[in-house]
Amino acid sequence: MKANRMEAFSDGVLAIIITIMVLEFKVPEGHDWKDLIGLGPKIVSYIFSFAYVGIYWNNHHHLVHMVRTMSGRLMWLNLLLLFWLSLIPFTTAWMGESHFEAAPTALYALILLLASIAYWLFQRAIMKQHAGDSAFVMAMGKDWKGKLSPLLYLVAGLTAYISPWISGFFFVLVTVVWFVPDKRIERVLKDH
Amino acid sequence: MKANRMEAFSDGVLAIIITIMVLEFKVPEGHDWKDLIGLGPKIVSYIFSFAYVGIYWNNHHHLVHMVRTMSGRLMWLNLLLLFWLSLIPFTTAWMGESHFEAAPTALYALILLLASIAYWLFQRAIMKQHAGDSAFVMAMGKDWKGKLSPLLYLVAGLTAYISPWISGFFFVLVTVVWFVPDKRIERVLKDH
Amino acid sequence: MKANRMEAFSDGVLAIIITIMVLEFKVPEGHDWKDLIGLGPKIVSYIFSFAYVGIYWNNHHHLVHMVRTMSGRLMWLNLLLLFWLSLIPFTTAWMGESHFEAAPTALYALILLLASIAYWLFQRAIMKQHAGDSAFVMAMGKDWKGKLSPLLYLVAGLTAYISPWISGFFFVLVTVVWFVPDKRIERVLKDH
Amino acid sequence: MKANRMEAFSDGVLAIIITIMVLEFKVPEGHDWKDLIGLGPKIVSYIFSFAYVGIYWNNHHHLVHMVRTMSGRLMWLNLLLLFWLSLIPFTTAWMGESHFEAAPTALYALILLLASIAYWLFQRAIMKQHAGDSAFVMAMGKDWKGKLSPLLYLVAGLTAYISPWISGFFFVLVTVVWFVPDKRIERVLKDH
Repeated sequence: MKANRMEAFSDGVLAIIITIMVLEFKVPEGHDWKDLIGLGPKIVSYIFSFAYVGIYWNNHHHLVHMVRTMSGRLMWLNLLLLFWLSLIPFTTAWMGESHFEAAPTALYALILLLASIAYWLFQRAIMKQHAGDSAFVMAMGKDWKGKLSPLLYLVAGLTAYISPWISGFFFVLVTVVWFVPDKRIERVLKDH
Repeated sequence: MKANRMEAFSDGVLAIIITIMVLEFKVPEGHDWKDLIGLGPKIVSYIFSFAYVGIYWNNHHHLVHMVRTMSGRLMWLNLLLLFWLSLIPFTTAWMGESHFEAAPTALYALILLLASIAYWLFQRAIMKQHAGDSAFVMAMGKDWKGKLSPLLYLVAGLTAYISPWISGFFFVLVTVVWFVPDKRIERVLKDH
Repeated sequence: MKANRMEAFSDGVLAIIITIMVLEFKVPEGHDWKDLIGLGPKIVSYIFSFAYVGIYWNNHHHLVHMVRTMSGRLMWLNLLLLFWLSLIPFTTAWMGESHFEAAPTALYALILLLASIAYWLFQRAIMKQHAGDSAFVMAMGKDWKGKLSPLLYLVAGLTAYISPWISGFFFVLVTVVWFVPDKRIERVLKDH
Repeated sequence: MKANRMEAFSDGVLAIIITIMVLEFKVPEGHDWKDLIGLGPKIVSYIFSFAYVGIYWNNHHHLVHMVRTMSGRLMWLNLLLLFWLSLIPFTTAWMGESHFEAAPTALYALILLLASIAYWLFQRAIMKQHAGDSAFVMAMGKDWKGKLSPLLYLVAGLTAYISPWISGFFFVLVTVVWFVPDKRIERVLKDH
């Protein structure tokens, strides 16, 4: 029952994060198609962030269903995750407005990195509640996506100093990795 | 259980979309009734968008109740739908501010068109889960509103270059089509 | 089940309405207590609107529990109610910024009047579903608050042209009327 | 059932409060790391407020589960609590923008003090519903955190006139006090 409420609160926060980013699209002065061109980089960064928050929402919801008992620890780790995610609208806007300059792009990657670490800590705390359950641990142990993502964010942040296109490649890579659903895990959890 | 959460998240996003549009009504400088006149086109476009998001919310909620098993595919199609809908506050503001000039009105229609295509894909993915169920497929097959709407949005977008009044006529037509509830479908689903 | 979702969506919209009003409190230039003085009228109008939206939330939730079957009619009447309520942040800001001048105060009362009419229509549509149930109709028939409120809003709107203090008196009167819970109705509904 | 809806509405309001604070981080003009320096005090005050609202959300949710019957009194006390909490984004922004000057810091503490008093009244009203239940009353009677917090806010507000660092110390102290979960209460409630 308690995990339900953590879920509802997190859903609310994620829904607001994903939606208020659109407030950054200021209405352009002119009324022609060409007046939208300046919004290009903002829309690109919005698409990235929309996909990331969507991915987090989806995974968070799988994870919360695994919670056995709520605890202060879980509550704080969840808040930590939401804290980093709540900074995404700001970093999205800065990156878009700067047309993907090095520092804003690196900050964008840094916040995603910190969010993925918080997510990993949150997941680990939940896994401890299933310590004796080998099927669950095995399924979660295969979590190569969760381990790969922070690395990709780190590389995206560092390569921002070479070219935003290289960073962009790694940002896209993360979404592709998560886009393809990992059927094995789903299957193990279903058997479970 | 999982579809419930997709519903809750979508409800949250739709509730925020429908409400933050009102932030575009900047408080006028003066304090007289005539100072509200400038807000006229904004209010008209707000009423349209409020009705559209309301219609989407209502239909989305019927549709989600038909989900048998959640999948990555459904999750992404739902996010795609929410993505297009999340751009409505921006296009609403641009259209209103421009007093219904051609490009903003056409963009407004374009985003609604893309949303209706995403909705159609989402619906088709859910229908596949009911492939053997002829009553359901028949009821859904009669979905002439879902097929007519994208066409009306397309026409509204193109006629924006002739006159905003013609576009407006087609925008109103969509809401009228959806306003009248299709009792046959309700009945088939109820029997079902 | 369907009414549940209307409830959840309405809750979301009301929660956003009540909260985004606070975005109108622009951070003052100075950093002293006296710099807050300019916010006075805004805070007063915020308190009114917070109380009204709170009252609507509370009554809406009683009412929705009485819904027997959802219908397109109920859905649209609920959206109509939410539409008028969604304009409250704008009218609150305008009234506060104008220091309670006549037109903004009258508009504020007008929107509340339209919301209360929408609420009355919504309530009437639900009552029709309980047509044969005399205890329910009797309890609801005693709804003198619902009948008095539109009248008080009307008077508040008209007297705004004499003095904002008289309007304010009637605005306060509405909240007082609703503040004291009507125990008889609660009791009848409980027996029921 | 009724308390559920109060919970959902409060969750929504708290989720919005915690998220819209981030709208105060205006995108800096420049695109370099040093351009973020000006945001420092805003981020510090954001972290405080994020933690406080998170703590309130967590405790509120424990408390609401203790509600036996909803009443107008509970509804209004809950709204009073949400009212004070809804002012946190404003006081957070003012405190951050002023770089922790005396008046904004004292106002920040004052609003938290008023929220903690509203929380205490809300809690007391719920405790009255468990008047005959000694285990519950005992567990709640040990609520030294709830009694200590208003005092700490008061001291933080007063010491703002000496130095923001002293205020900051007391603000941190409140979060530390609440960070460590009070296991005794959890245990008593579990037995209960």
